Amino acid sequence: MRGYVPGEQLNSPDIVKLNTNENPYPPSPRVFEAVRAALTGDKLRKYPQPLGDDFRRAAGRVLNIDPDSILIGNGSDDLLTILTRAFVPEGGLVVSPTPSYILYRELAAIQGARFETVRFTEEWSLPFPWPKPDADIVFIPNPNSPTGTLLPLGPGHLEPFADRFRGPVVLDQAYVDFAEDDTLATSAGWLPNVIVTRTLSKGYSLAGIRFGFALAHPDTIRELVKVKDSYNCDVLSLAAATAAIEDQDYYRGVWAKVVATRERMRVELRELGFDVTPSRANFLWCRRADRPVKPIYEALKHRNILVRYMDYAGYDGLRISVGTDAEVDRLLTELRSILAG
Amino acid sequence: MRGYVPGEQLNSPDIVKLNTNENPYPPSPRVFEAVRAALTGDKLRKYPQPLGDDFRRAAGRVLNIDPDSILIGNGSDDLLTILTRAFVPEGGLVVSPTPSYILYRELAAIQGARFETVRFTEEWSLPFPWPKPDADIVFIPNPNSPTGTLLPLGPGHLEPFADRFRGPVVLDQAYVDFAEDDTLATSAGWLPNVIVTRTLSKGYSLAGIRFGFALAHPDTIRELVKVKDSYNCDVLSLAAATAAIEDQDYYRGVWAKVVATRERMRVELRELGFDVTPSRANFLWCRRADRPVKPIYEALKHRNILVRYMDYAGYDGLRISVGTDAEVDRLLTELRSILAG
Repeated sequence: MRGYVPGEQLNSPDIVKLNTNENPYPPSPRVFEAVRAALTGDKLRKYPQPLGDDFRRAAGRVLNIDPDSILIGNGSDDLLTILTRAFVPEGGLVVSPTPSYILYRELAAIQGARFETVRFTEEWSLPFPWPKPDADIVFIPNPNSPTGTLLPLGPGHLEPFADRFRGPVVLDQAYVDFAEDDTLATSAGWLPNVIVTRTLSKGYSLAGIRFGFALAHPDTIRELVKVKDSYNCDVLSLAAATAAIEDQDYYRGVWAKVVATRERMRVELRELGFDVTPSRANFLWCRRADRPVKPIYEALKHRNILVRYMDYAGYDGLRISVGTDAEVDRLLTELRSILAG
Repeated sequence: MRGYVPGEQLNSPDIVKLNTNENPYPPSPRVFEAVRAALTGDKLRKYPQPLGDDFRRAAGRVLNIDPDSILIGNGSDDLLTILTRAFVPEGGLVVSPTPSYILYRELAAIQGARFETVRFTEEWSLPFPWPKPDADIVFIPNPNSPTGTLLPLGPGHLEPFADRFRGPVVLDQAYVDFAEDDTLATSAGWLPNVIVTRTLSKGYSLAGIRFGFALAHPDTIRELVKVKDSYNCDVLSLAAATAAIEDQDYYRGVWAKVVATRERMRVELRELGFDVTPSRANFLWCRRADRPVKPIYEALKHRNILVRYMDYAGYDGLRISVGTDAEVDRLLTELRSILAG
């Protein structure tokens, strides 16, 4: 087993990091206040709330859902791990679409399970009927990575979608905050076989604090609690996450800026000859028919711009995160120079 | 499966909490400084160091060990989970001594593995030869909980001890900081089948930030890295942990205070008729022959003092954490009143 290899993390101050889909804007000022308020000897020396009750109440209020349908996680990786351990036996079957998030394969390998993929259709939807009815778990990122494409699963669509699957379906909504569709963000698993995972790493500018949450039927949550580590989220992350989820106004502004930059990037990258998939996330999947993209990735890296080169058995491309406007300007300038060279 | 039930967490300000072995003293002032310094927009919005290199360097220097022999964990629970997933197949065998930490049984259940125990001898050592040679992993807390007893595994003792076991042996040293034996604290796994786990929750007064680390041969660490979540420790916890491990002077003072209070508690609890096992940890295991202890636990709870009642198939007792001197005085006053009543 090779293990999941996260995106490169170079730390030169001159580096433009457009490879791990971090939010280019800082978290809400309320996050800093909340962490400072939690920074007391008593809070640090004592165990945190095992289920994150304060966060659950706040998120329940903001998302208009039952707090008992929320499970806290040490990043959504922790939640994906918990779900794999809860549902997949050794020798079981994990399925996800392809091209998609490559962590699912590693989770299956760690669990001693098989991993199979189902190709997205040409229009980035899923085949019907679902060709792998025996999966112990199906992971579907929505929006998807690396493509940024979105399955329409709002009210009226989720139920027939879920009916396709016999076992549990995990909608990994890591990037949903950039999809501009509130019905998706709160479409929790009222259906017995649907579980939604969310993260504060992307939309909420908090990759550093490791916080995610799952939404599912309260009966499912109660079973998942038995699998998670008792105290999987720390007191400072819980304080930060609670303050962040409560400051929707601030983040709506952040998401709007990211979306505006994404749309400008898309237009400009197309003008540079890239085939850019329309994205509902904070990154763009860029391919080209006229020349290989890997040398472009390497040339950008040489110029201190990190993007992500991804290769799905010959179907390859560059996944470029949406940065600040200044970062995107630098990217475009360097790309023009590389493509002219 | 019932799931691990952590100690009760009541939050009345009047509660004396002597049930989850939290440190009664606050963390080092340097911890607060380090967290404040890490509290920047850029640190929060970016992913943390996947392997915690800054912590590994600091801990390597302080403990005089190779940083590559250190694995960071989101509390030592995370490390125990990683070890179980790495070494135990479904249907495999997890073994620990009894009476001991009850989490190991839950870890085995989540993994779909069997769990068996081996009784400590009357002198709180382990039987020789080891009666369960087929274990996929053996967990041995040292000092042990709930008893606080310590196996002598310093230089010269560890190697013959490890030779008893065919598979990996995990020395869970959560409480080693209170054992006053530096050779134990740094006896990392130079032996191919020994892995040591440590936590900052107890000795370093940081239960709230969730941080632990494992010590093992660098080859073992490299394999375990593949099983852990990519970013299992957050940027604020890493900053806190690094500052804490560097401030050994402060913590030596804390440990000395806890040990002094523990020894006073032991004498006074014996005078109150308890059978108190000599402890090298920050708690005492208290039983009595003349009357059941569960009603004493309940009477203390009624008076806002939480201790832990534990029952190992009829072998029961109270595990009482070492608090501040004022907390211990209140405990002793209430106990005198309860026992006289």
